[in-house]
Amino acid sequence: MLVVMQQGATEAQIQRIIDRLIEDGFDVHRSTGAIHTVLGGVGGGDQFDTAVVEVMDGVKEVHRIVSPYKLASRAFRPQGTVVSIKGVEIGGSQVVVMAGPCSVENRDQIERSADIVADAGAKVIRGGAFKPRSSPYSFQGLGEEGLKMMREAADRRGLLVISEVMDSLQIPLLSAYSDILQIGARNMQNYNLLRDLGRIRKPVLLKRGIAATIEELLLSAEYILSGGNYEVMLCERGIRTFETYTRNTFDVSAVPVIKKLSHLPIIADPSHGTGRRDMVPPMARAAVAAGADGLLMEVHHDPDHALSDGAQSMYPEPYAELMQQLRMIATAVGRSI
Amino acid sequence: MLVVMQQGATEAQIQRIIDRLIEDGFDVHRSTGAIHTVLGGVGGGDQFDTAVVEVMDGVKEVHRIVSPYKLASRAFRPQGTVVSIKGVEIGGSQVVVMAGPCSVENRDQIERSADIVADAGAKVIRGGAFKPRSSPYSFQGLGEEGLKMMREAADRRGLLVISEVMDSLQIPLLSAYSDILQIGARNMQNYNLLRDLGRIRKPVLLKRGIAATIEELLLSAEYILSGGNYEVMLCERGIRTFETYTRNTFDVSAVPVIKKLSHLPIIADPSHGTGRRDMVPPMARAAVAAGADGLLMEVHHDPDHALSDGAQSMYPEPYAELMQQLRMIATAVGRSI
Amino acid sequence: MLVVMQQGATEAQIQRIIDRLIEDGFDVHRSTGAIHTVLGGVGGGDQFDTAVVEVMDGVKEVHRIVSPYKLASRAFRPQGTVVSIKGVEIGGSQVVVMAGPCSVENRDQIERSADIVADAGAKVIRGGAFKPRSSPYSFQGLGEEGLKMMREAADRRGLLVISEVMDSLQIPLLSAYSDILQIGARNMQNYNLLRDLGRIRKPVLLKRGIAATIEELLLSAEYILSGGNYEVMLCERGIRTFETYTRNTFDVSAVPVIKKLSHLPIIADPSHGTGRRDMVPPMARAAVAAGADGLLMEVHHDPDHALSDGAQSMYPEPYAELMQQLRMIATAVGRSI
Amino acid sequence: MLVVMQQGATEAQIQRIIDRLIEDGFDVHRSTGAIHTVLGGVGGGDQFDTAVVEVMDGVKEVHRIVSPYKLASRAFRPQGTVVSIKGVEIGGSQVVVMAGPCSVENRDQIERSADIVADAGAKVIRGGAFKPRSSPYSFQGLGEEGLKMMREAADRRGLLVISEVMDSLQIPLLSAYSDILQIGARNMQNYNLLRDLGRIRKPVLLKRGIAATIEELLLSAEYILSGGNYEVMLCERGIRTFETYTRNTFDVSAVPVIKKLSHLPIIADPSHGTGRRDMVPPMARAAVAAGADGLLMEVHHDPDHALSDGAQSMYPEPYAELMQQLRMIATAVGRSI
Repeated sequence: MLVVMQQGATEAQIQRIIDRLIEDGFDVHRSTGAIHTVLGGVGGGDQFDTAVVEVMDGVKEVHRIVSPYKLASRAFRPQGTVVSIKGVEIGGSQVVVMAGPCSVENRDQIERSADIVADAGAKVIRGGAFKPRSSPYSFQGLGEEGLKMMREAADRRGLLVISEVMDSLQIPLLSAYSDILQIGARNMQNYNLLRDLGRIRKPVLLKRGIAATIEELLLSAEYILSGGNYEVMLCERGIRTFETYTRNTFDVSAVPVIKKLSHLPIIADPSHGTGRRDMVPPMARAAVAAGADGLLMEVHHDPDHALSDGAQSMYPEPYAELMQQLRMIATAVGRSI
Repeated sequence: MLVVMQQGATEAQIQRIIDRLIEDGFDVHRSTGAIHTVLGGVGGGDQFDTAVVEVMDGVKEVHRIVSPYKLASRAFRPQGTVVSIKGVEIGGSQVVVMAGPCSVENRDQIERSADIVADAGAKVIRGGAFKPRSSPYSFQGLGEEGLKMMREAADRRGLLVISEVMDSLQIPLLSAYSDILQIGARNMQNYNLLRDLGRIRKPVLLKRGIAATIEELLLSAEYILSGGNYEVMLCERGIRTFETYTRNTFDVSAVPVIKKLSHLPIIADPSHGTGRRDMVPPMARAAVAAGADGLLMEVHHDPDHALSDGAQSMYPEPYAELMQQLRMIATAVGRSI
Repeated sequence: MLVVMQQGATEAQIQRIIDRLIEDGFDVHRSTGAIHTVLGGVGGGDQFDTAVVEVMDGVKEVHRIVSPYKLASRAFRPQGTVVSIKGVEIGGSQVVVMAGPCSVENRDQIERSADIVADAGAKVIRGGAFKPRSSPYSFQGLGEEGLKMMREAADRRGLLVISEVMDSLQIPLLSAYSDILQIGARNMQNYNLLRDLGRIRKPVLLKRGIAATIEELLLSAEYILSGGNYEVMLCERGIRTFETYTRNTFDVSAVPVIKKLSHLPIIADPSHGTGRRDMVPPMARAAVAAGADGLLMEVHHDPDHALSDGAQSMYPEPYAELMQQLRMIATAVGRSI
Repeated sequence: MLVVMQQGATEAQIQRIIDRLIEDGFDVHRSTGAIHTVLGGVGGGDQFDTAVVEVMDGVKEVHRIVSPYKLASRAFRPQGTVVSIKGVEIGGSQVVVMAGPCSVENRDQIERSADIVADAGAKVIRGGAFKPRSSPYSFQGLGEEGLKMMREAADRRGLLVISEVMDSLQIPLLSAYSDILQIGARNMQNYNLLRDLGRIRKPVLLKRGIAATIEELLLSAEYILSGGNYEVMLCERGIRTFETYTRNTFDVSAVPVIKKLSHLPIIADPSHGTGRRDMVPPMARAAVAAGADGLLMEVHHDPDHALSDGAQSMYPEPYAELMQQLRMIATAVGRSI
């Protein structure tokens, strides 16, 4: 930690900072400059809250130097992490497509979905079983029955399954039916849930919150990794900005930034990222061109009558055409689908 | 709902929209203008997802007219709601101050806190018992033991207690010790929790998420109200913007806007709103001047050694001085503390 | 314009709105619903400020229906605009690359730049002659001398020239040396400048402001078009959000959104969009994959010693490699470079 | 400047940074830690672009230590600046109110305005003479004629005049009629204009841009101060966020933050800050309670027929009532109006 004192900070103020840091286990090195005194704190706890020093008298600014995340940082595993599930490798040379409906609605729908998704070359089927909706009168999901149907449809077509876990109590159930546990954007900082996910040995896809910085996403991943579960994938799905034409602003640049800062695979979700079906194909292409390790997309055999998220679900034909374009773009960036 | 068709939308496109709306139970009125055709949909479900129509061919824009919230709107109770708890009225002529430490740390601390808080004129003591922290190694709260201590300290000084409930499982425990259940910003859209809070008969303080619009806050309140629990208070505690000097941007204007749109009391939390102890007094004054029904503030007898949120906790003396200023400002806006 | 009255609006309030609209030349149609009265205003001025009605008593919300932009809208020229300059077509099947240094520094530098840029396949060279810098002590640009040098270098290699015009007084000078006049993000709403650009007959590239919505960008374009200058190109170059790793958040989704809403060509500037040289290649690829009609990028033969914007200027080799990848991606989306 | 190297940065990478810094005139001190090497650069230019080092190989992060602004910082004049104009002191114990119409429309209007404004206790009348509007067909202001009218009305009532200068060419004209030159939010980073304002000896009120951080506002002020014009006032008038109910989010916390970081007076403009007349009184009160040195507000004798900004202009009566409340709040914070 580096503490930069204000111009004109008194000796007493400087001493109080030094005492405070020593009290918390830091070794303190002092460097007196022409204008500013800088204190370097070494050791101490990683968890030390720098804001405590920041508001002390005479302090100009405080910089933390040791990364607040270690296990999630690229330096921890420079070659990158490949999450391997039943022969599907995520984070390797393949760009892995995960597609399917927002929610599992009935057997016919999920069976058709499996065919649409698999025929076009996706490796993973997505579908929600629990849908906590903004209205208590809306469709709330089929629960375990839906998971069972999706598992059967997936097995018939050799697909993996990804589905969302809403809270810790659902972990055993979801683990029984799903190959990847998805953590939604609103749960990105649900630390109790993150801790529990760290204790299991099941791949997790962690979505970025709509108001979360990239650093905060990596900190949440650290929480899972520190529990011993190393099979973590990250997911960009749009951030909230002043622009309203798209529901969120899909931060494509998060893809290469995360590739640089972390060894974890990064998946892009252009369906939630834009909220509009007509924007999914261009943004899916953009994400692959920017280096995404995979895509998560909503596809429905009849989006106009989907029970949820119809506006952002693709029709089957444009989805199949998109997959063709994505293959060419993957090639351009040295990968394959 | 009003659907505005694009200039040059075809008759077939218009008919498809009409059919779609009728299918969902709307009566449709058509108005053909010189440039745009406008379709008015009446009836239908409040829960209809307008985005479904928005992405259909030929549509320019869609406006929902019936408020998505009804029970939370000012029109539902024009005179305003007063939440009355053991003689303390929130939402009436008094500005109610809730203050105390971030977390209950030990008996001595919470007893001192009760004295500091009560001596200066606050009516409610705050303090967390469960602290899900970004690090698994940080202080996690005293749990039920802490709640017990806080209740005893509060009773000794005739204070009400407010404490945060993290998930539905904690509702019974918190209800036993606390007069007001606080819902944190990260849980503002935890619909399972909101539904469960609608079923109890205990006052709830619902905090605005850092990326939530005022309308979304009111929608979350609606969720609780629709369950039959009418004792809901809202809380502004800062939104995320590009400005970084303060941890969040404390949206003071949310106070008068919420007073206008809703009948529910609005409390302001300048401690979380700014993240800096030196900014709490001016922003507390601003919130009262803008019409807040109450304040929620962090105060600690020794902020430098607080186990959490020390940087935004006030020292006792400035807190007492602030209370004096607040009394004068409350008078200026026709209220009292 | 549609005016939705509040539930319970009085007859007198409704009448005042009707009178106000008639006063401004609108025909008013009234529709009384079960809950809300809706007033439709037809005719009247496009320039009518809807906020005036929005704050009147009894009004719930106001929606403007006629686009505030007409000449810039896709409906005005559904087939799209192709700006053709000396045989280079922007907005057609080619993706046009514009590259070069931030500023023209000296003859050697701009001549080398022309070679680097042209050898890799760009059609336009960029370079600033006037650099209003945040410090009065920084390099301020070579002025006309620099423009002359760039023109000569461009002519030698058969390149077009794009350079920024800072204010109306510079229009004649820039027009003499440059094929495209660039309007910077800070000038996007400099209406005097926009009006003057509408009067000339020279292609203009208009950059989106960092806090401007897509609609506001189109409104600014309308300003130029309404003066009779139809050769307008738009440029996405990043918006300001809470994320700080990149200097701005490069809003790639603005590319397909603008293609949908407008007939004007859209160029992407990943150099300013990210502010980091290491992020330019992935984001340039993303922009082309999303459908951009062109790219604007900073390249320097020695970025470490560039007099401005060195951190976001690419080295020549990565730039040349990027061009190869871009060709493959352009093919994937049915275009060429 | 502090350069923190990545964990595992090579000796060659470190040396390249050292060489680069020395090349730019820095003395470099190296500190090798257990995990990170930190390089301290002393001397060198204030204008050095840290981003250049930030993108070099092996660099983790770079922190600039010397404030990018000096003359604008609180340390430069700890007691604070009082701008004194014809007996009116801005930045002293008085809270100075500046009020009036958005634009000067005709003699009758500005004379009435002067009476409304002065009767309620304002010291300065505001009014625009040049209105660059988003439509070429809208009212563009009366120009010099309007300035003359406003000057006469002001003199009759003993008011100071504030009016906006749009570009450098207007400085002489505005200086002839106006006591304070206002710089609009869109011109906050118009460096040519700022430089020219630094050369005159006339008080300037500089408005914060809607996407500008507080630090950027202070940097722009530095530009004027460095030219020798020390009579600079700053103005908060709302920033752009995701919240849309108010036109901008009025960042009240900028008031105490600027008081802390700078010695310059800070004025608040709740009219532009909220864009809604009904939100002006609560936010004006909030700004004074937070410590603003003055207010800038739009008042019109007939807002419904104002030629510009009618929706955010107050009626005379609520304005007069507001002034009464403001007096009490000013007293509460130890000031007067």
